[in-house]
Amino acid sequence: MKENNIFLQSALTVEGSFMKNRQVVDWLKAQNEKVAVGINRIPFRKLKLWQVGHDVIRHDTGKFFSIIGINIRTNWGTVSEWEQPIINQPEIGFLGFITKEFDGVLHFLMQAKIEPGNINHVQLSPTLQATKSNYTKAHKGNAPRYLDYFRQVKPEQVLLDQLQSEQGARFLKKRNRNIIIKTDEEIPVYDNFIWLTLGQIKALMNIDNVVNMDTRTVISGIPFGSYQAGELDLSWLKNSSAYRDTIRYRLLESVLINDKHLHSIDTIISFITNLKSIYELDIKQIPLSSMKQWVYDENEIRHQLNKYFKVIAVDVEIGNREVVGWTQPMIEPAQEGLCAFICKKINGILHFAVQVKLECGNFDIVELAPTVQSLTGDYKERNKIPLLFLDEVLNAAPSSIIYDSYQSEEGGRFYREQNRNMIMLADEDFPVELPENFIWMTLNQLYVFLKFNNYLNIQARNLIASLSFI
Amino acid sequence: MKENNIFLQSALTVEGSFMKNRQVVDWLKAQNEKVAVGINRIPFRKLKLWQVGHDVIRHDTGKFFSIIGINIRTNWGTVSEWEQPIINQPEIGFLGFITKEFDGVLHFLMQAKIEPGNINHVQLSPTLQATKSNYTKAHKGNAPRYLDYFRQVKPEQVLLDQLQSEQGARFLKKRNRNIIIKTDEEIPVYDNFIWLTLGQIKALMNIDNVVNMDTRTVISGIPFGSYQAGELDLSWLKNSSAYRDTIRYRLLESVLINDKHLHSIDTIISFITNLKSIYELDIKQIPLSSMKQWVYDENEIRHQLNKYFKVIAVDVEIGNREVVGWTQPMIEPAQEGLCAFICKKINGILHFAVQVKLECGNFDIVELAPTVQSLTGDYKERNKIPLLFLDEVLNAAPSSIIYDSYQSEEGGRFYREQNRNMIMLADEDFPVELPENFIWMTLNQLYVFLKFNNYLNIQARNLIASLSFI
Repeated sequence: MKENNIFLQSALTVEGSFMKNRQVVDWLKAQNEKVAVGINRIPFRKLKLWQVGHDVIRHDTGKFFSIIGINIRTNWGTVSEWEQPIINQPEIGFLGFITKEFDGVLHFLMQAKIEPGNINHVQLSPTLQATKSNYTKAHKGNAPRYLDYFRQVKPEQVLLDQLQSEQGARFLKKRNRNIIIKTDEEIPVYDNFIWLTLGQIKALMNIDNVVNMDTRTVISGIPFGSYQAGELDLSWLKNSSAYRDTIRYRLLESVLINDKHLHSIDTIISFITNLKSIYELDIKQIPLSSMKQWVYDENEIRHQLNKYFKVIAVDVEIGNREVVGWTQPMIEPAQEGLCAFICKKINGILHFAVQVKLECGNFDIVELAPTVQSLTGDYKERNKIPLLFLDEVLNAAPSSIIYDSYQSEEGGRFYREQNRNMIMLADEDFPVELPENFIWMTLNQLYVFLKFNNYLNIQARNLIASLSFI
Repeated sequence: MKENNIFLQSALTVEGSFMKNRQVVDWLKAQNEKVAVGINRIPFRKLKLWQVGHDVIRHDTGKFFSIIGINIRTNWGTVSEWEQPIINQPEIGFLGFITKEFDGVLHFLMQAKIEPGNINHVQLSPTLQATKSNYTKAHKGNAPRYLDYFRQVKPEQVLLDQLQSEQGARFLKKRNRNIIIKTDEEIPVYDNFIWLTLGQIKALMNIDNVVNMDTRTVISGIPFGSYQAGELDLSWLKNSSAYRDTIRYRLLESVLINDKHLHSIDTIISFITNLKSIYELDIKQIPLSSMKQWVYDENEIRHQLNKYFKVIAVDVEIGNREVVGWTQPMIEPAQEGLCAFICKKINGILHFAVQVKLECGNFDIVELAPTVQSLTGDYKERNKIPLLFLDEVLNAAPSSIIYDSYQSEEGGRFYREQNRNMIMLADEDFPVELPENFIWMTLNQLYVFLKFNNYLNIQARNLIASLSFI
């Protein structure tokens, strides 16, 4: 593994060697215009190669994914039992970036990739999205592009290699392998591929729905190094003292400095251990047709009150000269959601209010989540049970907003789902004392947990991925 | 959380403030003689308060544990499918130590505890072994001793608090909460309790079957600090240059020094990520009575070839004046097992050959295991498939053996099960190149993984717990 500084340098480079970000947006638009995408809702019975049963909806081959019903019992939150459909996709997916230095700066090979559920069809994706079968088995015909670079990688070329979870409310214990490799070889750049710096990718995340979820999850894991406050010398960064007054600089400090935190890592582990010991999550598979409060008809599976999400079926046609078509089930959200981190300067360093949250598909009961996470919509309507910190986020003064954009969920499974992602700076009188299940952590500490299995949920990781330091 | 040095100091203190180790052994013997323990095997139908069914064996209340049958499919190892009984105990157990400083040295409050399966009945156990119900619910009558010290603990008193796994071949995803708290209060010491330093506990682990498994798992997680090789000043430890030539000193260096390792933590994470992505573990519950190759008769559940282990039923009577009695199922091993680490000096520092091992009850596919782990016996008979590194361990020259003793598995579930635990120093020509699924790690690195969930298996942790530095 190489020094992390190679990533920091790339993150601080907002002008790549190949294309300015304005050009990237135009290039994406051109990619979008080149292909025709037709998506039509169909009744379940028109799904080809899928078995639509009372119990489950699954592919004829048993591969890809299935939609199953589950009964959930838990002592977390206010609802102790419910039933819902969930995506069951036990195979570990593979999300990989090839990186290479140009002009001394690391660039990431991005793919302009179409997914049927994407709002704008084409989004910036990792170099490779592959199934485990693609990756582990011998090449047979239709291997994805660049696969062999990953299959033949040498350990010293691997910059990052982690297992990370997906949405716990939608996927049952789904995980992906996130990998970044570095090459010095000449490699071909196909028509819908482009080299970007990490700083560019992060800047593009300020625009709605341009960077796809798979890109965000992989780059969220990128480490930038760890220093004691006294050791940290960022003078090489930017000379202007103006930069040192910016929120971007304070974010960078929170990423790099491994002391001055309110709680030690061991205290945070103890905090999580306690909650994992207290909370129970009991999941049982049940037939789709017997789920309480859900209607399963010829066209969709929906909640009685039309809340949360629907399972639908779509017919997809994608192509320019050659047209590729298929049918598949998808998840359509009922409303848009909100994911937000509140941060606050404590001990001179930015701390994030982290929520320890239970979601039914979680691999290990609870995961570290954003301060506010309402994926199942209706945060705008205000529930009977108010969501903690929702008012603070929705009423945030514009000057306190560090980040605010709409980002898409994975377009291969989710039909036009976008959620609002926000990071805001709390004002002085925001209390240091947090409610049960919440704890202050620096970004450096969040990165420590991110490295190890299944600690940060995908919503928290997405917000971390969006942080720009410049 | 306090400085770790408090633990190091305790580990280096081999004479406690209260009793010498020879006296501890005598005291344990006296504790043993005070109680009469009667354990008799009974047919299943004589189990009281247990439901012995075709499908499962479970307690009338649905609590405690049950014995279920599982079908396992995996692409790990040479056997791709098998069936076996396994203990299902989804509740997180609670293993806790109260510690207190005497004469400036941290002492652990140990309990001389009887478990029905123990070879010698009484072993040194944590201050508290409680169920989750004990811990989370209000006190009702029969609360275990010292429970309230844990229930009313303040965060700053918590020295360690982790979730750790149990035997993956015998338990389905079982985990315990391991906790160490520190008090300054005067606390009562009941008849079967005793204060010992960590150095004493470690020294007592050189004697067979004195320190129970629950003690071993909790103390395995104790951190001793982390230093760069250049920073580390151990001159305060022992002046004699003779100590610096000992293997104990080299073990301590491997614990404390966080550089000079062969592989970085990120490289090890990548190594594990790759194996978790490759290996599949698919577990399905099946009726006990339909398990292939297992015989389920009125007295036991056993393998056709009498290999691995049996499920039996026992009647237990324990007491001196008052006699307490109950019946329960237990697991009886077919043979004794062997768990061994091979270590070797690499880059001037001791590295351990760690095996990434899949076991059917693992929470997350694979865990880090000792170099040799053969719990299901028959290592003495030599299989058709030779166990890697078995010869090196069994033929080790006496001078290369760092640790060698028999230690018991948990006596509440396992009937007189003991396994041989060994640590040996490889000689110069032992290869640095290791087979697939093996990787060299320093002890400092093993401690990094130990902190986070479900990385080190209980056999690896037991061996780490046994390390003496003096």
